[in-house]
Amino acid sequence: MNGAPTTKAGSVKSSSFFADFINTLLERTPWMDTSTAGKPTTEMCEALFTGRGEISGIRTASTILARYEQMDPSEQADFFQYLTEKLDVDAQAVQSAAKAYADHPDGQRLEALYRVAEPRRQELLRRLNQAPGATGRLVRMRLDLLNLMKAHPQFARADLDFVHLFKSWFNRGFLVLRHIDWRTPANILEKIIEYEAVHAINSWDELRRRLLPPDRRCFAFFHPAMPDEPLIFVEVALVNGIPGSIQSLLAETRPHLDPNKADTAVFYSISNCQEGLRGISFGNSLIKQVVEELSSELPHLKNFVTLSPIPGLARWMEQRSQDGDELAARVLAASRDKPEKLEPLRIELRQLAAHYLVDQKRDDGLPLDAVARFHLGNGALVHEVHAMADSSPNGMRQSCGAMVNYLYDLRTVEQNHEEFLMGRTVASSRDIKALARSASAAKGKKTNA
Amino acid sequence: MNGAPTTKAGSVKSSSFFADFINTLLERTPWMDTSTAGKPTTEMCEALFTGRGEISGIRTASTILARYEQMDPSEQADFFQYLTEKLDVDAQAVQSAAKAYADHPDGQRLEALYRVAEPRRQELLRRLNQAPGATGRLVRMRLDLLNLMKAHPQFARADLDFVHLFKSWFNRGFLVLRHIDWRTPANILEKIIEYEAVHAINSWDELRRRLLPPDRRCFAFFHPAMPDEPLIFVEVALVNGIPGSIQSLLAETRPHLDPNKADTAVFYSISNCQEGLRGISFGNSLIKQVVEELSSELPHLKNFVTLSPIPGLARWMEQRSQDGDELAARVLAASRDKPEKLEPLRIELRQLAAHYLVDQKRDDGLPLDAVARFHLGNGALVHEVHAMADSSPNGMRQSCGAMVNYLYDLRTVEQNHEEFLMGRTVASSRDIKALARSASAAKGKKTNA
Amino acid sequence: MNGAPTTKAGSVKSSSFFADFINTLLERTPWMDTSTAGKPTTEMCEALFTGRGEISGIRTASTILARYEQMDPSEQADFFQYLTEKLDVDAQAVQSAAKAYADHPDGQRLEALYRVAEPRRQELLRRLNQAPGATGRLVRMRLDLLNLMKAHPQFARADLDFVHLFKSWFNRGFLVLRHIDWRTPANILEKIIEYEAVHAINSWDELRRRLLPPDRRCFAFFHPAMPDEPLIFVEVALVNGIPGSIQSLLAETRPHLDPNKADTAVFYSISNCQEGLRGISFGNSLIKQVVEELSSELPHLKNFVTLSPIPGLARWMEQRSQDGDELAARVLAASRDKPEKLEPLRIELRQLAAHYLVDQKRDDGLPLDAVARFHLGNGALVHEVHAMADSSPNGMRQSCGAMVNYLYDLRTVEQNHEEFLMGRTVASSRDIKALARSASAAKGKKTNA
Amino acid sequence: MNGAPTTKAGSVKSSSFFADFINTLLERTPWMDTSTAGKPTTEMCEALFTGRGEISGIRTASTILARYEQMDPSEQADFFQYLTEKLDVDAQAVQSAAKAYADHPDGQRLEALYRVAEPRRQELLRRLNQAPGATGRLVRMRLDLLNLMKAHPQFARADLDFVHLFKSWFNRGFLVLRHIDWRTPANILEKIIEYEAVHAINSWDELRRRLLPPDRRCFAFFHPAMPDEPLIFVEVALVNGIPGSIQSLLAETRPHLDPNKADTAVFYSISNCQEGLRGISFGNSLIKQVVEELSSELPHLKNFVTLSPIPGLARWMEQRSQDGDELAARVLAASRDKPEKLEPLRIELRQLAAHYLVDQKRDDGLPLDAVARFHLGNGALVHEVHAMADSSPNGMRQSCGAMVNYLYDLRTVEQNHEEFLMGRTVASSRDIKALARSASAAKGKKTNA
Repeated sequence: MNGAPTTKAGSVKSSSFFADFINTLLERTPWMDTSTAGKPTTEMCEALFTGRGEISGIRTASTILARYEQMDPSEQADFFQYLTEKLDVDAQAVQSAAKAYADHPDGQRLEALYRVAEPRRQELLRRLNQAPGATGRLVRMRLDLLNLMKAHPQFARADLDFVHLFKSWFNRGFLVLRHIDWRTPANILEKIIEYEAVHAINSWDELRRRLLPPDRRCFAFFHPAMPDEPLIFVEVALVNGIPGSIQSLLAETRPHLDPNKADTAVFYSISNCQEGLRGISFGNSLIKQVVEELSSELPHLKNFVTLSPIPGLARWMEQRSQDGDELAARVLAASRDKPEKLEPLRIELRQLAAHYLVDQKRDDGLPLDAVARFHLGNGALVHEVHAMADSSPNGMRQSCGAMVNYLYDLRTVEQNHEEFLMGRTVASSRDIKALARSASAAKGKKTNA
Repeated sequence: MNGAPTTKAGSVKSSSFFADFINTLLERTPWMDTSTAGKPTTEMCEALFTGRGEISGIRTASTILARYEQMDPSEQADFFQYLTEKLDVDAQAVQSAAKAYADHPDGQRLEALYRVAEPRRQELLRRLNQAPGATGRLVRMRLDLLNLMKAHPQFARADLDFVHLFKSWFNRGFLVLRHIDWRTPANILEKIIEYEAVHAINSWDELRRRLLPPDRRCFAFFHPAMPDEPLIFVEVALVNGIPGSIQSLLAETRPHLDPNKADTAVFYSISNCQEGLRGISFGNSLIKQVVEELSSELPHLKNFVTLSPIPGLARWMEQRSQDGDELAARVLAASRDKPEKLEPLRIELRQLAAHYLVDQKRDDGLPLDAVARFHLGNGALVHEVHAMADSSPNGMRQSCGAMVNYLYDLRTVEQNHEEFLMGRTVASSRDIKALARSASAAKGKKTNA
Repeated sequence: MNGAPTTKAGSVKSSSFFADFINTLLERTPWMDTSTAGKPTTEMCEALFTGRGEISGIRTASTILARYEQMDPSEQADFFQYLTEKLDVDAQAVQSAAKAYADHPDGQRLEALYRVAEPRRQELLRRLNQAPGATGRLVRMRLDLLNLMKAHPQFARADLDFVHLFKSWFNRGFLVLRHIDWRTPANILEKIIEYEAVHAINSWDELRRRLLPPDRRCFAFFHPAMPDEPLIFVEVALVNGIPGSIQSLLAETRPHLDPNKADTAVFYSISNCQEGLRGISFGNSLIKQVVEELSSELPHLKNFVTLSPIPGLARWMEQRSQDGDELAARVLAASRDKPEKLEPLRIELRQLAAHYLVDQKRDDGLPLDAVARFHLGNGALVHEVHAMADSSPNGMRQSCGAMVNYLYDLRTVEQNHEEFLMGRTVASSRDIKALARSASAAKGKKTNA
Repeated sequence: MNGAPTTKAGSVKSSSFFADFINTLLERTPWMDTSTAGKPTTEMCEALFTGRGEISGIRTASTILARYEQMDPSEQADFFQYLTEKLDVDAQAVQSAAKAYADHPDGQRLEALYRVAEPRRQELLRRLNQAPGATGRLVRMRLDLLNLMKAHPQFARADLDFVHLFKSWFNRGFLVLRHIDWRTPANILEKIIEYEAVHAINSWDELRRRLLPPDRRCFAFFHPAMPDEPLIFVEVALVNGIPGSIQSLLAETRPHLDPNKADTAVFYSISNCQEGLRGISFGNSLIKQVVEELSSELPHLKNFVTLSPIPGLARWMEQRSQDGDELAARVLAASRDKPEKLEPLRIELRQLAAHYLVDQKRDDGLPLDAVARFHLGNGALVHEVHAMADSSPNGMRQSCGAMVNYLYDLRTVEQNHEEFLMGRTVASSRDIKALARSASAAKGKKTNA
């Protein structure tokens, strides 16, 4: 009676406009251009350049991508070698064109300079992107490239062009924020399970507990050309008061809170999903936008904080312990023995953590801790540290069970951000400052001894 | 529950227009009318009648439903007793009105007759249905009623009105066919897992295997006022040739088939989802529509068959065995011992099954087997029976592992349907006829002996 | 590459799930069952009854509807005569069944009573409704019936069954509120232009001025089975202060107001769209729901008022003038001469209008004025009357240019509603009361004179 | 602008996911950063560069765009001067970096080269694009730039960067084909009316006649970041036989054709919508994709042709007439007198048109006629020319009423395309070849005379 069209039209899939579109393309058309069976892939790339119109372009692009996807790593390396060497910038030509433009800076000479200054592989990637589903496929291609770069450092030259294009394509202005909940299509939820990098989701039941209760939220950024692929997502708990333990936050049996009665939104997990987009960052705008989103939905919310791991703490304490800090040694030892032994050392662990976060820097003046760099760079401040906050094996291992709240205060976030970037200043609460001082004083004393 | 801006704006939930709508209402309004705290529910029902406008109607209806949902079974029984006795038809008034109309058959007298011939509980149900989400809630209310009817047979009178309204509300013209796949929202998929009644789905992975592969399909009917609740669904496998075993059809490791190369669509599971809609049937139109849907999407499909259980076979064989049929006894014994022992009895089991399906009737002339009644009533024919087709414990128990293919041939389906309804004729293939004859001959022989 | 399916899926049409569905059905299938070419339509109706399954039901229903739609009025009358006489209630049977039930009130006898008390035409309509697009087609069929009822009063009996079913089908619980704006599909907007019954929309530009500005809103009720057909809609202006003139409200050059700065929402036009649904009312719930909708979107709104015509005012004044009321005569004369002449009579006109609205009743105690009955019945109160408020020819003719604000105050709306229904009390503001008193005093005086 | 709950909840606007999204942002946030009131815009641009995070970036970007949008042309020129001069490439630095890379071609030096070879204005545009709705606003900004370039040719340098980014952003892979019909939102249809460039649409009724009939189609490309703005659209008529007159194709009273009975799809109008995207072409892929779309929906279609204007014909005939071609002079004279006078000159006009299209070239070897260049470049062939085909004033003026069919034959389109690009070969039908030969022969003769 009614064919595929009906079910598609307005079916449960109606949200994935672009996906359907692309899938349909993929399904219908014999994209593997069989007439080119004998041609080397590099020759087809050249054909893609010359075919000025798009008449055959989409077909050629599809064939190249499909072939690429069947390559083994050594063939991939050949392909990337081709990109790196054959499609590179002609540096001599750039020199001449730059000189010509320096002498006569007009539009024509600038255009000539642009033409030679951009390596041909950029144009190749743009043309490959015409193929159905190409954007996601190019992201996966770059992941291969990143893996091969270890053995082939020269591929870094080709990688520059992936990065250049991805920065244009995945510009913040093109990303779309979507609410992830228990009514989200299963194929997307499946990816949330897969990509969760902070506190693993072990089953669909566990996922359900993070999405369905009224006091839970999840948001993700998507790109219209990859509508079924989240780029980054954040999980949020709505609570009363700033929480100090991930276990109680995620407890299976906790009572649910009426979201209108919550005063605090906790960002307890932020995960990047696409390794092929490494270096193209979305995290700061995601948090910022989710804060505005939640503020508008739930005007009673007063605090926006994270409950974050301190991934480098134990490693740093280890170092310090080797340098003779007995306190650090004692805490480390306790954490490796039994959690209960940490109980009497709570305050000491918190002092160490505060000191580590606020005072320990890399050579470039930025904090040692990677998560701290991220949130402080966004304009957050170090609000509080907690002992016994993550008693999972991983939590004990990386930070002796300590966790930290970074606070996003919209009134100070821009100033914090600027002072952090300009003066490497780490914003922190009065409590944290006091804790950090105690630790450094303690250290000072000991060193003097 | 879920945040406004993001969710609305075309989010993944955009398909649940009506649900969102209703949720929004539910969230906003203090539907539990607290000013009525002291009033008995029956009094509120009376108020619902008198409140001619809907100004307070929605609120009153919501309050009544919310109260009902907190009742224990004995309070529910009181409520249904009220429906049954207090809101019943006044048979005397009907008699007078009917007489008046018989004497002077005009519009006014007919209207008067209608007014008294319809019990007030129908109007009550219609008014309750104004409340947000009410349709699904009334369906659940009827489920309670069905359960209580065993102990309170008089409630059958109230049930008639639920049935009457549900037949109008769930008219085929209001139902919507939707494709269920791996991109369907998780809250709906969760219900597919829950409601699957024929071959249980034990995990999300198993569900994925029934939805994601290109050679699988699933369709469901929905009602716009219950957009998150499937009413009935059918699972389909696309294969080559008519299959004779459910195990191989569902095997985890089977190779996937290009759906364009399939010649057969197998309906291997049909499940009703709403017990509260018992007696309001959708199955026949679902199958019919899915056949047309698939024909249009995949024009190469030639056969539309089921692979169905024969739920009453073993019970009937048991009877027959007690009546002295040694063959039936032998097959039953083998099936209760080891599946392998059935191997040499394949043909005998098939003969018995064919005979059972084609020749065994109830007093009303319809087939003994419930599933046979359903498909034959839809115009299908008995196409083939298979031994060793369902080796699950349930399959062995109910039918000694036998299954049957009913064939939907669009060219004969209407004629079969009519002949079945009118003449109780069971349509079957030549093979089945032969098998059935052998069994009845065998029986004949034995009896003669 | 991608056929209609793609564009449909997720295209701009994605909101009309049900419409697409139905259209597809309509377009694809040769619904006119040609094998039945010779059969009389009434015979096909009988076939629709007997075909128990839906196998052939949808096709038969479609054929009957398609035939009906090609009938001329005299053939239609034959068809309705068939419905009225042949498919009527058997009043004798009802009498017996009612007696049987009165004697033994059990479920079986009640079911028997229901079976005979419902005329067969109801079941016919339910079965016709299975056909694609049938709901809207049956609504149009009833419009024909209403038109033919003037010449064939006996058809009122058949009309009762349309009304009965439509009340179930268009139950408030199934209606969906949708925002109409400048992004609404053109095929729906076209109907807004067509159906606007209060202040005509003369062009798409005029429609745009009622939908696009930030201080305008429009809401409509839809039924899922008629997704492209608004049932009723209301137009709203957001303003500051309660307005006293429709001209200034709709002025082409008026400045637009930031909706967040508005304190008043004015319902300046409410139009029913489906004549075939006459008697099934939605207006009160529409206004009520729009008030809640707007309150939630724009919390600064304080007043919800109408700016309504007073359609019966001039006629009543005419009567009064014939009864010797000089004031009424003077105002009427001025209104028929030049609008300017009304200027000095503003206060007198307002007194007359207030008196008319508040004090003039029909025999049943309800207000003379139809619009007043509607809003007062919803629980609104008469808030203010304005002279020189509608200077259109129609406005001058029906009410000498006067208009009225009915005020919806959520705190009093239920009580007003109840008192209006129970005690025929007309709620009104202090000002209106004073105006009405003056008019009746004036009259009193005059009469005394 | 539009109320939250209703609109969101799956309303008619659900297709404009991205638009809603953006609107929501726009509405909520005080994007005009008032704290920067005194700062020059160029200073804010510098701030946009330094602010590494996006915390303040979106706000700054929005403020810059909002300011830009209030500039008068002379202020705009200052802004573009800033882009052109201050944010230009440092050609010296490029020379050094290119030399360094030529000497040691490694990733680090290539990155350094990229850094200096890309002018800072590109990064500025990318950052501006973060602002809500920025993509469309930048397209409009470029339109200003194009206008100012006439007086300020140096701005061509800045324009190169707009072009560079737009080519990446509007890559074919990101565009979405949408079906435009009478159910399309009015705000989009309004743009179809506005942008139609070939055969003007004078009213909504006329638009309706181009969209609603079953034998009409319209398709457009959209970009996800500008969901309410068509980029290019094509109007299609489904007919029988290849048409020779635009009047009869668009006749108000023509009978409608069952699309399944059409054998020909006529592309009778293609219009670019965004002047700010000049030079970024979509036309070829649009036609190509629509051909595939229609082939799949309507498998009976055999011919895909245009009915195109010949915009340069009269101008060329004028030239030729001045060069002494009497025939051209005669035809021109007739066309300026009365259409009827052209009747006896039909064949001569067709010969001239064929000759013009097939044989008249620019210096670069491409056809003189712009529309011919477009379609021949896409791989179409010149199929037929018609006299008396467009009798509108514009048609008479530009081509003496002649029109041409370009034929898209999927079997030859790639080869035509290649031969056109490589060898400047104009593909044409046998008839056209004969006509063109006659004209050139005639010319030859005359010239000889």
